[in-house]
Amino acid sequence: MTAIAPIPNTSAVASSPDTPKTIDWLAIAHDFMAVVGERYVVRTREELLAYECDGLISYRQQPALVVLPRTTAEMTAVIKICDRNRVAFVARGSGTGLSGGALPLPDSVLIVTSLMKKILDVDFDNQRVVVQPGVINNWVTQAVSGAGFYYAPDPSSQIICSIGGNVAENSGGVHCLKYGVTTNHVLGAKIVLPDGEVKNIGGKIPEMPGYDLTGVFVGSEGTLGIATEVTLKILKSAESIQVLLADFTTVEAAGSTVSDVISAGIIPGGMEIMDNMSINAVEDTVATNCYPRDAASILLIEIDGLEIEVAESAKRIEAICYKNGARNVTSATDADQRLRLWKGRKAAFAAMGRLSPDYYVQDGVIPRTKLTYVLQEIEKLSEKYGYHVANVFHAGDGNLHPLILYNNAEAGALETVEELGGEILKLCVRVGGSISGEHGIGADKKCYMSEMFSDTDLETMQWVRDVFDPQGIANPTKILPTPRTCGEGAKSSYDAKYKLMDRF
Amino acid sequence: MTAIAPIPNTSAVASSPDTPKTIDWLAIAHDFMAVVGERYVVRTREELLAYECDGLISYRQQPALVVLPRTTAEMTAVIKICDRNRVAFVARGSGTGLSGGALPLPDSVLIVTSLMKKILDVDFDNQRVVVQPGVINNWVTQAVSGAGFYYAPDPSSQIICSIGGNVAENSGGVHCLKYGVTTNHVLGAKIVLPDGEVKNIGGKIPEMPGYDLTGVFVGSEGTLGIATEVTLKILKSAESIQVLLADFTTVEAAGSTVSDVISAGIIPGGMEIMDNMSINAVEDTVATNCYPRDAASILLIEIDGLEIEVAESAKRIEAICYKNGARNVTSATDADQRLRLWKGRKAAFAAMGRLSPDYYVQDGVIPRTKLTYVLQEIEKLSEKYGYHVANVFHAGDGNLHPLILYNNAEAGALETVEELGGEILKLCVRVGGSISGEHGIGADKKCYMSEMFSDTDLETMQWVRDVFDPQGIANPTKILPTPRTCGEGAKSSYDAKYKLMDRF
Repeated sequence: MTAIAPIPNTSAVASSPDTPKTIDWLAIAHDFMAVVGERYVVRTREELLAYECDGLISYRQQPALVVLPRTTAEMTAVIKICDRNRVAFVARGSGTGLSGGALPLPDSVLIVTSLMKKILDVDFDNQRVVVQPGVINNWVTQAVSGAGFYYAPDPSSQIICSIGGNVAENSGGVHCLKYGVTTNHVLGAKIVLPDGEVKNIGGKIPEMPGYDLTGVFVGSEGTLGIATEVTLKILKSAESIQVLLADFTTVEAAGSTVSDVISAGIIPGGMEIMDNMSINAVEDTVATNCYPRDAASILLIEIDGLEIEVAESAKRIEAICYKNGARNVTSATDADQRLRLWKGRKAAFAAMGRLSPDYYVQDGVIPRTKLTYVLQEIEKLSEKYGYHVANVFHAGDGNLHPLILYNNAEAGALETVEELGGEILKLCVRVGGSISGEHGIGADKKCYMSEMFSDTDLETMQWVRDVFDPQGIANPTKILPTPRTCGEGAKSSYDAKYKLMDRF
Repeated sequence: MTAIAPIPNTSAVASSPDTPKTIDWLAIAHDFMAVVGERYVVRTREELLAYECDGLISYRQQPALVVLPRTTAEMTAVIKICDRNRVAFVARGSGTGLSGGALPLPDSVLIVTSLMKKILDVDFDNQRVVVQPGVINNWVTQAVSGAGFYYAPDPSSQIICSIGGNVAENSGGVHCLKYGVTTNHVLGAKIVLPDGEVKNIGGKIPEMPGYDLTGVFVGSEGTLGIATEVTLKILKSAESIQVLLADFTTVEAAGSTVSDVISAGIIPGGMEIMDNMSINAVEDTVATNCYPRDAASILLIEIDGLEIEVAESAKRIEAICYKNGARNVTSATDADQRLRLWKGRKAAFAAMGRLSPDYYVQDGVIPRTKLTYVLQEIEKLSEKYGYHVANVFHAGDGNLHPLILYNNAEAGALETVEELGGEILKLCVRVGGSISGEHGIGADKKCYMSEMFSDTDLETMQWVRDVFDPQGIANPTKILPTPRTCGEGAKSSYDAKYKLMDRF
């Protein structure tokens, strides 16, 4: 076997509907190797296995090739090769995304940013850092915490997920109630467009003049290009942090508490609710020994600020919890105790493995005022479809994470579970919410975009996409709906018009 | 004279470079009248006088016609008439903008949103309101304050400026240090595109999926379309507000105090510095009797939050002021006293009329750490050009407002003052800042865009603009640089490429 064999799919037909031609993957692989070196072009079926899905493991697809550039220049050269050959490319960071944004496409190149992991600049005076996209979320805080700063967005996967992926999916986290999701913390970026051109968007200060292209890029899931440098805001660490754990005999009481806290003019760093099923799953798994197993729900509240402010807020929140019928309120101020209280929440998704071979996590948003109604409706849907649904959610933001438990080995289970998940999303939209809070749309939820947006609104998004990517090679078929994946034929004139986008 | 005469410029040549044709303003005026009624089409030279400039009064241009639609349907019909006739239109709210964003163009239609002043929906539970664009900034807070809410962005002109104008210019205000400028408070909008199509962007909840077109639209100065409904976030009013006034014997000491407060982890609602010239101008004008006339600078700090938190922060800030050499720190907690302390700051621009027949206000942003250096450089520029420069600024954000005092009646004065203003902006960019903090680019500062952005970055903005406005009729020649207005011929390949945009 030669060094570069086997090359998959050498007879594949390229994607353009008007000028079909054979993709010469061997030549493309050689071109990539000339740029990044042989070691960083992954091409055997066995090695490609590691890249066939992201965190949405129910969908798998091997790409033709995986390339790992290390610099903006290498990224540019790699993307230019894709552009020249009109082959699709998909960007991937750590692969922890939950909507299939980094799911490879057939006959595509997967561009992985894991080797771009340098923190390029730290500027404490102006509270910003410049990082490469492969830098792990948690490293940013580690790099600046010594000087009393931190990076606010904190997905549960923060010890492994990358900043590039966070930017692509506009990730959130448990502390985004007070500080906002990723887009609120990105000042600018250096991006490589789908034709290989390098652009700077935004800058090093907030609110640059001109059109806010940073806002468009954040959350664009690799469809407008790939960032090679990202400038992030860092915040001053709070003087004091306190975590409260309240337990309730109904989920509704926890929900009302959340509304009452916000109405009292207090904005905690985060407010999280877990239901009984989730509580028991995490206690079985990580044994925090502080989540009461018989509670219908627990509410975790983190408060940060000046010491005196935190103490006062904690006192008021505790009173609001008891007024809403809390059985008990535990408080933690030192770091170890706080971590213990958070440990179960952070492990919640993983813990579902104790309850069920597989789970499917949804990411809907609802107005806080509809929480009780929506939870009751989810319970009804759970009964109707015959699958348990555990609820873990960023309650302060109204961002639900229903976890549908199922066994993928059962024939037809995934399809039914997806349908149930879809019903939950439609319910979220019906009450004035959204089909995504922080996980993105990716491959998983694009067929629900039409629930939220009219044809004409989707067309506007397509226009913007076409401007950045006229050949349609940057993560095509993701985000915007196409008939193939919705499983219902062309759903709308929008779908019909853009069905060519489905050519990959 | 008939009801619709006189119609100006009936012999004007329409704007397309390839197919010049005569604009039939009489027919267009008739079409507008059929939509909005005769009363709301302004067409005599005398009436048009009121619309020939915005807050940047040094530039004046009469539009061909002014139209005042009242609904989305009327706006759509009006814009479709412009599109069909390929005539440029400029959007205007209250006309208080300071960068000439609403400056009419020759042979253009000025679309004024002043009659669209309904508050369409107030939703306290989900903390949002839906307003028409002509609603005055201050009315939003007035409509919700009874229930304990407020709208955060507060330009100094808030008693007269409109939400539509705030959205167009991404306006700021003295309290944007803690809460951010307009873009952080707009959840979504209904917009009419330059071809008359109606689109919904964003929604009623933060962080909608798909490309963030709300972020692009906010700050686009009427170049991407006109909003007819805007959904705004409202915030819970703080339990307690305190204003501190510290006076210093140098401006630098006030600047260091600002940096030290932020470094101490305290984020006040706003921190404003005024220099000696500004202090005396406002005391001469509004007589607050609390700004010490012999101070080199005063620093106004507003702190909001829980009562106990505000008291603690005030104590710490006071200590930081004295450590930096403050002569005195005055504090106000009751509403009347607070208003008195703020009164001079809010009147600062107007007060310049006491010192000089005219003033030219700049709006640059600098890193906080460069404050002392930049103020010294501005002083040098002031001496070099022979014009006094008063400094009033949002110190917490590093957002400077140098006020250059001059007499427009002196031949050549305006040109020299603009050159001095330009030097100040270039200085801001040189230290890592920006040419605009909150007033927009408009007609005034577009020739400095090339100082901040490369040709390729400006091209990307132009792409986005072309997508929304392929005919180039929505506020053409604004924001992006064109050779004509920079007074230097084509400055770059970007300018050369897009000089066709300068055809209006």
